[in-house]
Amino acid sequence: MNTRTEHDTMGEVEVPSDAYWGAQTQRSRDNFKIGGETLPQPLINAMALVKKAAAYTNASLGRIEQKQADLIVQAADDVLAGKLNGQFPLVVWQTGSGTQSNMNMNEVLANRANEIAGTGLAAYKPVHPNDHVNHAQSTNDSFPTSIHVAAAIEINRLLIPAVKALRDTLDKKAQEFASIVKIGRTHLQDATPLTLGQEFSGYVSQLDHGLDRLNDALKGLYELPLGGTAVGTGLNSHPEYAVKAAAKLAELSGLPFVTAPNKFEALAGRDASVFASGALKTLATSLNKIANDIRWLSSGPRCGLGEIKIPENEPGSSIMPGKVNPTQCEAMTMVCCQVFGNDLTVSMAGASGNFELNVYMPVIGYNLLQSIRLLGDACNSFNNNCAVGIEPVPEKIDYFLHHSLMLVTALNRHIGYENAAKVAKTAYKNNKSLRETAIELGLLTGEEFDKWVKPEDMVAPR
Amino acid sequence: MNTRTEHDTMGEVEVPSDAYWGAQTQRSRDNFKIGGETLPQPLINAMALVKKAAAYTNASLGRIEQKQADLIVQAADDVLAGKLNGQFPLVVWQTGSGTQSNMNMNEVLANRANEIAGTGLAAYKPVHPNDHVNHAQSTNDSFPTSIHVAAAIEINRLLIPAVKALRDTLDKKAQEFASIVKIGRTHLQDATPLTLGQEFSGYVSQLDHGLDRLNDALKGLYELPLGGTAVGTGLNSHPEYAVKAAAKLAELSGLPFVTAPNKFEALAGRDASVFASGALKTLATSLNKIANDIRWLSSGPRCGLGEIKIPENEPGSSIMPGKVNPTQCEAMTMVCCQVFGNDLTVSMAGASGNFELNVYMPVIGYNLLQSIRLLGDACNSFNNNCAVGIEPVPEKIDYFLHHSLMLVTALNRHIGYENAAKVAKTAYKNNKSLRETAIELGLLTGEEFDKWVKPEDMVAPR
Amino acid sequence: MNTRTEHDTMGEVEVPSDAYWGAQTQRSRDNFKIGGETLPQPLINAMALVKKAAAYTNASLGRIEQKQADLIVQAADDVLAGKLNGQFPLVVWQTGSGTQSNMNMNEVLANRANEIAGTGLAAYKPVHPNDHVNHAQSTNDSFPTSIHVAAAIEINRLLIPAVKALRDTLDKKAQEFASIVKIGRTHLQDATPLTLGQEFSGYVSQLDHGLDRLNDALKGLYELPLGGTAVGTGLNSHPEYAVKAAAKLAELSGLPFVTAPNKFEALAGRDASVFASGALKTLATSLNKIANDIRWLSSGPRCGLGEIKIPENEPGSSIMPGKVNPTQCEAMTMVCCQVFGNDLTVSMAGASGNFELNVYMPVIGYNLLQSIRLLGDACNSFNNNCAVGIEPVPEKIDYFLHHSLMLVTALNRHIGYENAAKVAKTAYKNNKSLRETAIELGLLTGEEFDKWVKPEDMVAPR
Amino acid sequence: MNTRTEHDTMGEVEVPSDAYWGAQTQRSRDNFKIGGETLPQPLINAMALVKKAAAYTNASLGRIEQKQADLIVQAADDVLAGKLNGQFPLVVWQTGSGTQSNMNMNEVLANRANEIAGTGLAAYKPVHPNDHVNHAQSTNDSFPTSIHVAAAIEINRLLIPAVKALRDTLDKKAQEFASIVKIGRTHLQDATPLTLGQEFSGYVSQLDHGLDRLNDALKGLYELPLGGTAVGTGLNSHPEYAVKAAAKLAELSGLPFVTAPNKFEALAGRDASVFASGALKTLATSLNKIANDIRWLSSGPRCGLGEIKIPENEPGSSIMPGKVNPTQCEAMTMVCCQVFGNDLTVSMAGASGNFELNVYMPVIGYNLLQSIRLLGDACNSFNNNCAVGIEPVPEKIDYFLHHSLMLVTALNRHIGYENAAKVAKTAYKNNKSLRETAIELGLLTGEEFDKWVKPEDMVAPR
Repeated sequence: MNTRTEHDTMGEVEVPSDAYWGAQTQRSRDNFKIGGETLPQPLINAMALVKKAAAYTNASLGRIEQKQADLIVQAADDVLAGKLNGQFPLVVWQTGSGTQSNMNMNEVLANRANEIAGTGLAAYKPVHPNDHVNHAQSTNDSFPTSIHVAAAIEINRLLIPAVKALRDTLDKKAQEFASIVKIGRTHLQDATPLTLGQEFSGYVSQLDHGLDRLNDALKGLYELPLGGTAVGTGLNSHPEYAVKAAAKLAELSGLPFVTAPNKFEALAGRDASVFASGALKTLATSLNKIANDIRWLSSGPRCGLGEIKIPENEPGSSIMPGKVNPTQCEAMTMVCCQVFGNDLTVSMAGASGNFELNVYMPVIGYNLLQSIRLLGDACNSFNNNCAVGIEPVPEKIDYFLHHSLMLVTALNRHIGYENAAKVAKTAYKNNKSLRETAIELGLLTGEEFDKWVKPEDMVAPR
Repeated sequence: MNTRTEHDTMGEVEVPSDAYWGAQTQRSRDNFKIGGETLPQPLINAMALVKKAAAYTNASLGRIEQKQADLIVQAADDVLAGKLNGQFPLVVWQTGSGTQSNMNMNEVLANRANEIAGTGLAAYKPVHPNDHVNHAQSTNDSFPTSIHVAAAIEINRLLIPAVKALRDTLDKKAQEFASIVKIGRTHLQDATPLTLGQEFSGYVSQLDHGLDRLNDALKGLYELPLGGTAVGTGLNSHPEYAVKAAAKLAELSGLPFVTAPNKFEALAGRDASVFASGALKTLATSLNKIANDIRWLSSGPRCGLGEIKIPENEPGSSIMPGKVNPTQCEAMTMVCCQVFGNDLTVSMAGASGNFELNVYMPVIGYNLLQSIRLLGDACNSFNNNCAVGIEPVPEKIDYFLHHSLMLVTALNRHIGYENAAKVAKTAYKNNKSLRETAIELGLLTGEEFDKWVKPEDMVAPR
Repeated sequence: MNTRTEHDTMGEVEVPSDAYWGAQTQRSRDNFKIGGETLPQPLINAMALVKKAAAYTNASLGRIEQKQADLIVQAADDVLAGKLNGQFPLVVWQTGSGTQSNMNMNEVLANRANEIAGTGLAAYKPVHPNDHVNHAQSTNDSFPTSIHVAAAIEINRLLIPAVKALRDTLDKKAQEFASIVKIGRTHLQDATPLTLGQEFSGYVSQLDHGLDRLNDALKGLYELPLGGTAVGTGLNSHPEYAVKAAAKLAELSGLPFVTAPNKFEALAGRDASVFASGALKTLATSLNKIANDIRWLSSGPRCGLGEIKIPENEPGSSIMPGKVNPTQCEAMTMVCCQVFGNDLTVSMAGASGNFELNVYMPVIGYNLLQSIRLLGDACNSFNNNCAVGIEPVPEKIDYFLHHSLMLVTALNRHIGYENAAKVAKTAYKNNKSLRETAIELGLLTGEEFDKWVKPEDMVAPR
Repeated sequence: MNTRTEHDTMGEVEVPSDAYWGAQTQRSRDNFKIGGETLPQPLINAMALVKKAAAYTNASLGRIEQKQADLIVQAADDVLAGKLNGQFPLVVWQTGSGTQSNMNMNEVLANRANEIAGTGLAAYKPVHPNDHVNHAQSTNDSFPTSIHVAAAIEINRLLIPAVKALRDTLDKKAQEFASIVKIGRTHLQDATPLTLGQEFSGYVSQLDHGLDRLNDALKGLYELPLGGTAVGTGLNSHPEYAVKAAAKLAELSGLPFVTAPNKFEALAGRDASVFASGALKTLATSLNKIANDIRWLSSGPRCGLGEIKIPENEPGSSIMPGKVNPTQCEAMTMVCCQVFGNDLTVSMAGASGNFELNVYMPVIGYNLLQSIRLLGDACNSFNNNCAVGIEPVPEKIDYFLHHSLMLVTALNRHIGYENAAKVAKTAYKNNKSLRETAIELGLLTGEEFDKWVKPEDMVAPR
């Protein structure tokens, strides 16, 4: 491998000749050979966006030259366009402030800017990584800002639409199934009836609430640490910088970012990320319930509940037709387990700041963004490959409904509680139907039974 | 022990003669000898309040007699007044719907009502536990309603005021300490200065955000399952019951309770509790940071940071004066660990519902309410026994501030980056002060140093 | 309330006149009004046992008088006999070292000893709380020792026998059910058959492994910090004290306690507790699976799987006979959620030590012992009230077995894979049996089918 | 992209022309576009190893031809040599049994085998993915077997050596620092002295215990599900297959693998993985304590504790010499947070099996192996880039030691407790040294003080 020699305050470093990164990135590469997980792409993109907003703002405040800003913006746009993929090799398991990843972005943007300017790699002028790209910033404010920006963008871009799409599919099913009366189950035991549409409406409502909670969580993510610089005081930044840079980020992203009201919290606490992770976990709670219900309701085909059918996407077995493994449900519930674990990681990390800085930021960003990605992708996959194709199995639903002993409750007002109980107990003991048993016991006629026992009348208050 | 014989659908049960509870409670006592944790008092109270609201509503809708309602209300008021403490012996580790605890409340209220009415224990008239106290209810809707009511009341009654009180104390300190310039610390390493007031303002902002999050969480808790009855359909309830009963609960509690928009979710999902637990965990995240900072800042007295003093509440050691163990911080951080664990329990339990019911309700209520109680009490204890008495140690703060090498950054614009770095490196190497070193290096005079290096000018953007 | 005035190094304290505790306990009562959870009884007992062992050892080494030791031992025996219940009022949420709880024990034992000696409460001679009861101890070594002793005793006394009893019941069932062939289920979908006994044998094996893991965990708990005194150096203790005191504890408890090989770890790390909690959590994992399987297998009675019956312990519903809610399963799974949460609390607390001491000990002890208690009690309750009464429902098992399409695999070798698949697909499509379909397709005779398709031949390698 | 058409039981699938995978892999690629995390390489390797062992065993039992086995072995060796990287594109978030990943391996090995045999891709003879590569296997036994094999190999190959190396470095330091007496700290407060070597010996002991726990955890991982086939009965396998295949895996890997004693547990429970994850989490607990201690002890350089120096690996700041950010400690503590979260994911997943199968296997494998990898890599990185270079800062250690008031305890026996306390209190109040104060108070001479107050006499029992 050909290398060039770069310098930093600690001395010389050999950097691959064609790398846009520089000395500080290289040191981190050498010193942190831990795992293989690099920072997620949405975080890289958000870092580029933050640098772009900072460059604009610094130029508008006269702190860097407009020409420098233009070059930085061009370079940042190259990152955002994916032209510099591969230039961000650092792993999550580095310094807890993300300093070297911030420097990685500074170095790449500076080198790319200077390449555009014609001075080339390692020239560091007209654009210098620290003096210009990182101007009025510290890793300590720009890195957590990038986490907020990345999470807010991904929640809006990927997750909310995915949840909405699944919600809409389930709502459509709820309406389609509105008149299919089925047995209810509590404690896994037969209970009074409801409609299949009502059952699905519960899922819809869970997701509606989940969307509300994501919006609650976004409020905190929209508050940006940028402008706090090294310890929250804003040392080395222009007094108008924080507000203007946040406004620029809002403009660039289309999201209502504002500067955080208190920069000391904004650097030292990662509570907004913890709360957002809690909202993601709550969404996972809902999705876990939904996916579990759907795989149980479709269990069988012969020896389970089998009240619904789900699409058959892969051979469940080479010999067994009708064995539709609920693979999308399984992927979803595995995602939920991951989101639960990630929430713990984010929470522990978020609780562990000291004094002016939280130094668990890369692991927070990694887990928060993984949860968003997985939930978004899993909702889309579940929706497209499972939910849209859910169909009721009317004969099974009817069979259970009419064999259930729970319908006997409808007889209370006609033959009295005591007699109704007798019917149910006898039917259960003799393994017969309620109707058959009630007639045999001489308590009513078949016509009366059919008139009085109408499950469809039991699915709403009266 | 004297007993009386009661009957239920499964046969006879011996109940202590003087117990207000009946057969079903007794069966649960006998069958669940697990741990010793009974339902928390706020949940018992909320159950009584729900029964009271249901009785009022059922009477107003003509479903039970006014006289029966009046008796139930009187009995419920006795529970709320603490007159029937000891009558709720069931443990958390029972059926997951809380059925026997609901029956416990039904039985106690019926027996007490009948005692007032003069018919006495075990008469079950004029007030019957099922037919009247539990009218238009199922455990499946009234028990989760009680969890929401209990949690919402306790958050409003205990937790929010406690957080506010601590927040106000810290805010007062932030203002008192506004002009005390001190060294900042990032990565536990010396950094640029800030004021002690700024440091404390970060804590205030964390708690302000925490209060916002509690209000986000309350929204979901204010939505009540009551009226869903057994499976969410509202079978056996009056069509107006759900709305009216929620309104009555709002009136009785002074909190904005409303009926849940979807009862199928309301019975089967416990997402609002999971989200609320997430908000509590996020608050714990903030409090953990604050308590840790305070114990580190007060560490010493000689061999730690020692920038602040906290009240001495207990002898830290029989021989060592000035050994102030940060015991309130320790209690707080232990509470935070508990809240983290409780959040996991609530979340797993909340994710585990099936079909029409979540059967992990007692464990959800127990953990959610424990977290609220512990955080509220711990904030009060920490506030009263620690925060109010925090005092700066000016000589230590000054010593660190003026020995820090980080102030050298102020010289950059006067003697240039290279020379400033040389001053810092030399001072560090020779274990001398910046001022002394800079003069020795001939780079400036003492007067110049004093004019240029003013930490108080480094605590805000310029 | 009548009080007496006591003194400590911080001044005067009013203590209830009849309290055996003294000034330091009282201070903690006053300063920590957090939650209501006092230290669990097994921990109180273990503390008394540790004091007893220390007294014996100190006397044998000539560090306190034999008469003093005898008095301390008598007082400790009173604690162990439950005669001083109510004298340990301190909550978990106190100093993280448990100092005041250690002092509480010292004070109670001294006061009781002196009462026996005739000098009475608050005399503090001939036995002094610090000089004699606490001799050669610090809270920092004796409190974590007590946690180890309490956990080891409770695991041996309660948990292991409870797990064994449940294991033995399940093993008995496995043998009883050894020849009941039933359908297997993977992905909740019908699969090849196994015997009900084989299914239960899996549970037995899980519990056998769980017992092994408890023994792995006990190894670390048997290593005692006692003798490390304040920071691990053993300052103020006799060189032979640590070994002898551990031996005495082993003698008194019948468990193989030894002195920890490194006292610095023993005070500052709580890893043995974390690992033990992990073993408890793994056991919870097994129990969760078992309880879930049993409630699903017993679901119904008409609209579920219904392959087994479990005892009916409480009315599941006032009207619905045969509605057996799986309440013991629900209690068990709620316990499992709690144990998961407790494990997190113990782990976070265990990871948070600094330098010479971990100051999260009360919360570790509380959660560890709660998990042991809950798992032990839940195993006993589940065993006695559910497992012993499990019965197969042969007609349901047979119905499923013979309706399953999966048996078609047995035909592959006789009519070829292609034809077998055709049989299964056709049967599924027409909702008919395999036998009927195969005959209709002209692929075999009824006799051939009965000879070739024998589920009982499919439950072992051949 | 050029494709070829393949067939499976559900119809035709377009597969990239040059892919070694086939129809089933392709279906999973198309249906599960969730996240980007593919199965970790050690799991892919373990799957190849399992196939290799199965091929050997099946040939030796006459169930497949020797020639077929030889081809499979050759293909598997190509996978193990990394020659087929890129042929395993499936993500973790797929079916919970890992079926398509198992098929991916079957297809790749078959295609590669046939390529070697000269028949080429998509020929599926002489080696067929199902009939030969997967012979006597089901995903349900071979996939969990691969998880055990992968985890056991990585723990032995990577993690244990890494922990040992770090342990040895710390032990070397403990010995080097054996005579450096320093102040102890409990509750973050000054306490009695110990040696720096003793402090480090605690870390060594934690890691020694951690190694013991890994060995406890390995016991369960060495038990292999292979031979259980679809539901644990071993249907379609030779009676000797399970034992022989495990023996072959032991031979191939050099690790003591055996067949699991109960295959029903082995398929349906993932307890051994949960317990192993608990051991990893306990190790993380230890490492978190160690890394935290080291960054606190090295905090400063001027305004922290600064008792040790750690290597300076990256510029901590462009201006501040001596600012050594404890970046390796930060990477380690972030890894610990991740391992905590992963443990939760593994545990929830492990607790969620139903009947004959746990369908959370890919997420278990992913998290378990990530934890092993991260802990192993982090130990190596921490060892090489931090621990080996730790040096004491004697002047700081001495300064703290001799300024601490805690040394006054040594005077008790000479001037009495009362006078000693007076010395300490006066010294603290006047901010003077103990020696100076004691002389001023006329209680002793300087010579006496120097003779009596010897910290080095306070670091062991006497």
